[in-house]
Amino acid sequence: MNSAASEAALIGVDWGTSSLRAFLIGGTGEVIDRVSSPEGIMQVAGQGFEAVLDRLIGPWSAQTERRTRLPILASGMITSRNGWVETPYAAMPLGACGLARALVPHDAASGTRIHFVTGASTEHAGGPDVMRGEETQIIGASALGLIDGIFVMPGTHSKWVHVADGQIVDFSTYMTGEIFAALKGHTILGTLMEGEDVNDDAFKMGMAAGLDSRANLLHDLFHVRTLPLMGKIPKVDVADYMSGLLIGTEVAAATREIEDIGTITIVGRSDLSDRYERALHVAGRECRRAPDDIVAKGHFLIASAAGLLG
Amino acid sequence: MNSAASEAALIGVDWGTSSLRAFLIGGTGEVIDRVSSPEGIMQVAGQGFEAVLDRLIGPWSAQTERRTRLPILASGMITSRNGWVETPYAAMPLGACGLARALVPHDAASGTRIHFVTGASTEHAGGPDVMRGEETQIIGASALGLIDGIFVMPGTHSKWVHVADGQIVDFSTYMTGEIFAALKGHTILGTLMEGEDVNDDAFKMGMAAGLDSRANLLHDLFHVRTLPLMGKIPKVDVADYMSGLLIGTEVAAATREIEDIGTITIVGRSDLSDRYERALHVAGRECRRAPDDIVAKGHFLIASAAGLLG
Repeated sequence: MNSAASEAALIGVDWGTSSLRAFLIGGTGEVIDRVSSPEGIMQVAGQGFEAVLDRLIGPWSAQTERRTRLPILASGMITSRNGWVETPYAAMPLGACGLARALVPHDAASGTRIHFVTGASTEHAGGPDVMRGEETQIIGASALGLIDGIFVMPGTHSKWVHVADGQIVDFSTYMTGEIFAALKGHTILGTLMEGEDVNDDAFKMGMAAGLDSRANLLHDLFHVRTLPLMGKIPKVDVADYMSGLLIGTEVAAATREIEDIGTITIVGRSDLSDRYERALHVAGRECRRAPDDIVAKGHFLIASAAGLLG
Repeated sequence: MNSAASEAALIGVDWGTSSLRAFLIGGTGEVIDRVSSPEGIMQVAGQGFEAVLDRLIGPWSAQTERRTRLPILASGMITSRNGWVETPYAAMPLGACGLARALVPHDAASGTRIHFVTGASTEHAGGPDVMRGEETQIIGASALGLIDGIFVMPGTHSKWVHVADGQIVDFSTYMTGEIFAALKGHTILGTLMEGEDVNDDAFKMGMAAGLDSRANLLHDLFHVRTLPLMGKIPKVDVADYMSGLLIGTEVAAATREIEDIGTITIVGRSDLSDRYERALHVAGRECRRAPDDIVAKGHFLIASAAGLLG
């Protein structure tokens, strides 16, 4: 609890596949209090969402008389088919006003009203692309003055998002994180990996292979096996090499057709974000960092645009 | 047993990771008899290789007085670190004479001598590439007059091999088969796959995406999720779409820098080889088929070059 905080105006919930974060947000968008839980949507059975939310945000009701009237916004995979209420996807371009118009209100059994933020979709030649939750983070970034350029959001499925004037104009998903885990855990490539060393040289060597214009992943991944097999890299470096190869391949693909890419904004403060920062430096790209709790700023701006802050 | 067969001259063994095939080979290279077993090197514990081999080829001793003196050649992963006798890799270019010179004789406990065929290695900018077993198949193909051009050998790790005048001059491994299995079994992409339909349209749609010059796999794989999610392809077609996408990506990468590719030879008669034949047709490539038991021809030609046929 921040003692200098203004009166609470909003509760924002970022509810993903594997975790949940809730924010008590003040009248100027500042975070007054926060709570998190590993109860992502895959961990909550049946109709248990309401009970989880009540338990997590209940303590805030003792701290504000307005609690029962505080608007609640929820974003993330909680609006997917396996979530609480499935909402449609909003199309590009998409900003705070578009997301405000697309809010889906839902009255829980207890009478609590939750406003669900829809996900976003776009269409490329090869097929559709979708996000749920990241759109709210991007809107939040505009509160920090980050309203233009390329954003990368590292994760199981990392997102590269093009933003112009605070609007999301396009994005692409890369399955890099999930593919790394599947390759490490369930192919022959994991068998030569030892230890947990962080070796920057091995990471950079993998990055260079991934950034090479002749790179092709289905073949290059075999080097994750042959390099230690032939004694070219030690086994403790193999995981870092593969991480570099995959992230390098992603960075090359995501930046290939953008002429004036400018400074790339990395969203998040995780170990994975650190890797992407190193990767972008190796690739010769300028980058800056945005905290991942900008999602609360996104909840605030969308609620404000929807006239929910009364 | 082929009643028209000549006297047995050689036993050839193709001993891989997950299976084992042995051939009784006549004096002109023809297969007189064959036996197979699921006892690949990963299924045989400790020093059990000799017992497995004796059991499988033992019956042939009753059919030929020369059995105890028949030379035995063994190729495949049996010469890897996890196999019976680890042998070095032979370098490019590599033909029957080079493999004959590199044979590694080994006397088993019973006194039986086995001549192990070494694997082959090559070096590219990104790292080394290796094969064990495929080199013997390629040498065997030359007995069918297939002595030039590109060979593709579909499998868990498919190999693309450049052959000139019956010599292997270069090759590349693509981990397509193993990556397909890991993605299907251990990522979110498998969760929307239903049934076992073979849908040629879905396969071709995936192929087209993989062959596209803008293709990049880490992103394109996400379409395996979004296409059924948005109702663009039925769930029973999802596995075929992903198979097409991966094989298309492989074909595009493997053929990208070859100017005069000619007719591609597909080695093998498996379901997977059928997929590669369809894929090459979609890609506008001419192809032909070679049986995968050409490995026995390879054993014969290498033994002949080594002067083992008496």
